[in-house]
This record gives sequence, structure tokens and C-alpha cells, in this order.
Amino acid sequence: MEKLGSQTIKFNTPPTILECASIVGPKEAQGPLAKYFDQTLEDEFWGEKTWEKAESKIVKETVNTVISKAGIASSNIDCVFAGDLLNQCISSSFGLRELNIPFFGVFGACSTFVESMSLGAICIESFAKYVLCATSSHFCSAEKQFRFPLELGNQRPPSSQWTVTGSGATILSASGQGPYITYITPGKIIDMGIKDANNMGSAMAPAFIDTLITHFNDTGRSPSYYDAIISGDLGSIGKDIVIDIAKSKGFNIKNNYDDCGVLIFDKNSQDTHSGGSGCACSGTVFSGYLFKQLKEKKLKKILLIATGALMNSTSSQQGESIPGIAHAISIEI
Amino acid sequence: MEKLGSQTIKFNTPPTILECASIVGPKEAQGPLAKYFDQTLEDEFWGEKTWEKAESKIVKETVNTVISKAGIASSNIDCVFAGDLLNQCISSSFGLRELNIPFFGVFGACSTFVESMSLGAICIESFAKYVLCATSSHFCSAEKQFRFPLELGNQRPPSSQWTVTGSGATILSASGQGPYITYITPGKIIDMGIKDANNMGSAMAPAFIDTLITHFNDTGRSPSYYDAIISGDLGSIGKDIVIDIAKSKGFNIKNNYDDCGVLIFDKNSQDTHSGGSGCACSGTVFSGYLFKQLKEKKLKKILLIATGALMNSTSSQQGESIPGIAHAISIEI
Repeated sequence: MEKLGSQTIKFNTPPTILECASIVGPKEAQGPLAKYFDQTLEDEFWGEKTWEKAESKIVKETVNTVISKAGIASSNIDCVFAGDLLNQCISSSFGLRELNIPFFGVFGACSTFVESMSLGAICIESFAKYVLCATSSHFCSAEKQFRFPLELGNQRPPSSQWTVTGSGATILSASGQGPYITYITPGKIIDMGIKDANNMGSAMAPAFIDTLITHFNDTGRSPSYYDAIISGDLGSIGKDIVIDIAKSKGFNIKNNYDDCGVLIFDKNSQDTHSGGSGCACSGTVFSGYLFKQLKEKKLKKILLIATGALMNSTSSQQGESIPGIAHAISIEI
Repeated sequence: MEKLGSQTIKFNTPPTILECASIVGPKEAQGPLAKYFDQTLEDEFWGEKTWEKAESKIVKETVNTVISKAGIASSNIDCVFAGDLLNQCISSSFGLRELNIPFFGVFGACSTFVESMSLGAICIESFAKYVLCATSSHFCSAEKQFRFPLELGNQRPPSSQWTVTGSGATILSASGQGPYITYITPGKIIDMGIKDANNMGSAMAPAFIDTLITHFNDTGRSPSYYDAIISGDLGSIGKDIVIDIAKSKGFNIKNNYDDCGVLIFDKNSQDTHSGGSGCACSGTVFSGYLFKQLKEKKLKKILLIATGALMNSTSSQQGESIPGIAHAISIEI
């Protein structure tokens, strides 16, 4: 691999995305992408006593599913990159503790899935045969931890987003027929001073724009090169914002840009306000929907830019603004 | 680089540890390693209004110090790996949000520093000229988050450890005169069912043993190859345990093994019970003390194995055991 421009990495022997798996919760099972997921759950507990244990079970079973679909032995996987939204990433560490594979914990908030794929791709081109990448989030465990007890029934403002319950996992391979990871553009932390924890789309939009434009400048590509440019979870409000900002910077993304948080729920019937969010938002939409579009050649070149808000409830209570990050990955067949 | 044995990576052109920096709090300033740190603080707030903001300031200033000591422009650093103990790793993201360098958030609890150096070394041998690795922890923010409000004055059991206030940071370079990172052995999650959150040394000891023995098996080395084998923060209880277990498995580490948590505090005079812990424990002891020993050739070959407990307060309240992890890095001049 080689460095290209200021912050992009080009793969000379691009890693193959060998297989993907996804499991989602009951709300996602009623959404427009339901048929693309490997499994949909009937309730948020899945037989467990707590939401945290349920989330660990979801990531565990998603990882078991992707290993099974890939048809390889887990002992052949060189390492795993995983992380999630729960404090100290316990969904990943408890869900994957029986996996018996060298483990790198990562945290990029809702950008975690693309961060893990980026680092996995670097490992594939440098030493590994197979790398596993996984992430999860859970509406109930996230609301409880970041906002209010669900039992309070708090009203949610129109700009708020709905944390996706689910897990996405993928296995990258040094050999295979694609889809290939051709470029990654890891993002910088961008903090424009936005403080509204109920408006994450606005807080993360500047990071998305920074990574998007850097990717085009570094690679010499333009928005029209891609069949689809997909953000992680800016939601409908963030989506409108970045179309406008990109246009003002000379990049027209209106015709081929969409957002995982917009795609996964039906805005009119599902009452999810600005759309989906959480690590599993881009994790499941890529692993379920986008990967199949690539395999069936309905999409041939996509730029997936997952966004994350690097705050916690304490930082908001202490009056801090919300630092955002966005990692981009170029996937082609 | 190449894979060696079951989980070790050998660097063919070993990355140089170009420079290190460390800042510690007032308790560490009274410990036996005080003279090795770049800066020692007089109080836990450092002029900030909260412990969380103080921790962010500590990592920010430590990173500024290491960049300054290395004599390179921050724009030449390809990426940064950082993480910490605070929920959603806010110490790193707030402390480093003005850095303007592509950012990979990592979480390995107290193993984070060696995890970041491991991933940084992979990047150096594959595409990067310079990589920055940083971590932090803070006694007060950690106690508040994981245990009890400090104002309660809770009594601490003899097996408990004292979270180090401080930050360690290092810059890895593709060229240089060493000390070199020659091997890494990333660890698996190991959970032996230990549930006592006040006895982290015991919970993490099995992960240390697993990585230690795997490293020897993969490389063909034995304990006597190294001038020093150093664990991250097993503390005095964990230290005794792993000496015994290693012996029972046929590895005698008694003569050249020590622990960062034992080294950083004086057990008799400082009332820290089993010793230091936290991301900054191995971070500051390596960046302050061990790096200087290597530069002065007092140590020529060390094996640093940082340990982490991958739990949070919710998992303990829900009756879960404590999964441990240990990442090893071989450093030679």
C-alpha cells in the first residue's frame, strides 16, 4: 500500500470483502431494508435478562454467522477489530470473549465499522490472510446510557435519531474476487462547536465534509466517479446539510448520495425523526444491503463514509461541544 | 512484516521508537520513578474545572511535548492511535481534537498503550513515516466513573489498585537508530470467571500468561532472552500470581520480570495497596522510565506486555465476570 496525498491510503493488492452478516432488532425488521438482513429479532431482549447482554448476544451471533457463511475455520482468522457504543465497549468484549482470536478493540463511536474495516484492510495487505471486523449497537442500552431511562417515556426532538439495534460483521480476505477495498481515507477529529446532543447530524456533518473533500483531493476522483456515496448516520437533517455544504465547496453529491440512517427506517411510518444512528447503522446497512448490491453488480463503486460523535453524557453535562469524525472507504468490484 | 506461529508478527524493517513523553499527577510525583517523567503536576485539576477536562489537558500537553521533543512537524505524522478509560474515550478525543491528524480511536482498557504501539508499528512498516501513539488515565475521573464518588471516602480493599494520573505518548518512525519494535504478539480475550472488580490483577493474570507463553512459542525465545519482561498493571498480587503460573507451565520469569504498577508507587509509603493501574500506568512507565533505560543501553531487550480488564460498572452490577486481554511488544536496541 502507499500514502496518497495528505491522508489517503491506496491498496496495491486490494483486500476482498469475502462475506458479511447482519442481525437487527424488531424496529429495523419493519423498515425498508428488512429483507436484506440475515436475521431479524422479535424483541429487544432475545431471551437475555438485560439489554447489554442482548447486545453482546447479537454481536456474538452475527460473528458466528459471518464465519459460517465465509466457510473458513475461525482459527484461520488472524485478528479481529471490534468496538461499540457501550461504556468500555463491553458489547464487543463480552460478545467476542469466546472467539479465541487476537483482539484489537477500537472506538470511533458510530464510525467504528469503517474504522475497523480500514485497519483490517491495512492488516490484510501487510500480513494477514483473514481479518474479522464487527460492531453493534442497541436502541435500549444506548438510550439508557446516553439519554434517559426508557421508562420515563421522554419526548424526543425532531432532530434526534434512533439508535439501530443490531450488529454488522465482515471478513476481509487477502485473496478473492472482490468487492475490493481500494482506498481508505481515515478522518481527523473536527469540532465546530455544536453542543446539541439531540442533533448529531449537524455535529458530525463538518467531519463528513472534511473527509469527503480530502478523499477527492487525494485521489483525483470526483463525486461522479462513484455509483453511490453513502454516509454512516447523518440522518435526514445531516444529509440535507452536507449536500448544501458540499455544493458550496464545488462538489455536487446530490444525485448519488444517501445516508444509512435515512435508508434503514421509513421516515413517514416509523417515527424515527431524523433517522437511524449507532455503530450498527452503517454496520448493518453495509453488511446487509450495500454488500449484496455490490455482489449483484447493482452498484460497482461506492464510497462509504461512516461518521461518529466522540462525546459522552459527562462531556455534554460539562458544557462541552461535540467532536466529530468520519472515516472513508472506497469499495469497488 | 510476516506472521510467525499462531499470533505473532515479525517486523522485517523494525520501526524505531523515535521519542517518548510523559506527564504525571501529584501521587506519581512522590513515587520512585518521579525523576523520569517530563512533567509532574502539583494537583489533580491542573487549572481545569473538572477531572475529565484535566485528563484531556494532560494527554494534549503530553502529545505536544513528544512532538516537540521529536523535532518533527505534526503535519508529517500520518496518523494517531489513542484511547483511554473514560466512557467513549473522551479524554483522547477532547484532548486531541485540535491535533489535525487522522485519528484512530482504540480501546483496550489498561492495555491501550501497547495496543496503539502495535497498530502504529504495523502502519509504519506498511505505509507511514511517523505514527503517534498516546493514552491517559486519571485517578479521580476513574474512581468516580468505575467505583464510588471520592467524597464518600470509601475504604479500599488490599487487592485494589490505584489508577495512575498521567499520560504517556510516543512517536514511531520508519527510520531511526532504535529502540526498535521487533515483534508484536496481540492477545486474545481470556475470561476465567473472576468477578471481583477490586482484584484486577487476578482477573488479568490469565491473559498475561496466555500472551507470554504464545510469544515464546511463536518466536522460539525463552524468558532469559530478555533483559526485562514487564507487565502493564498486574500489581503486586497479580505479579506474584503470574510468576507462579509461569513456573508451573515451565517458564521461569522470576529473575527478570517486573510490573509497571509495582514500579511506579512505593508500596510501603504510598498506601496504594496492590500498586498502580490504568492506561497511563504502562504508558508513563514505558515513556518515562523504560524508554530512557533503552536509550542509555541499561536495558537492551525488553518484552512489554500491557494488560487490560474489558469490563465496566454495568457488567459488574449485572453479575458478569471480567474478561482480560494482554498485548505484547518486543523492543530491542
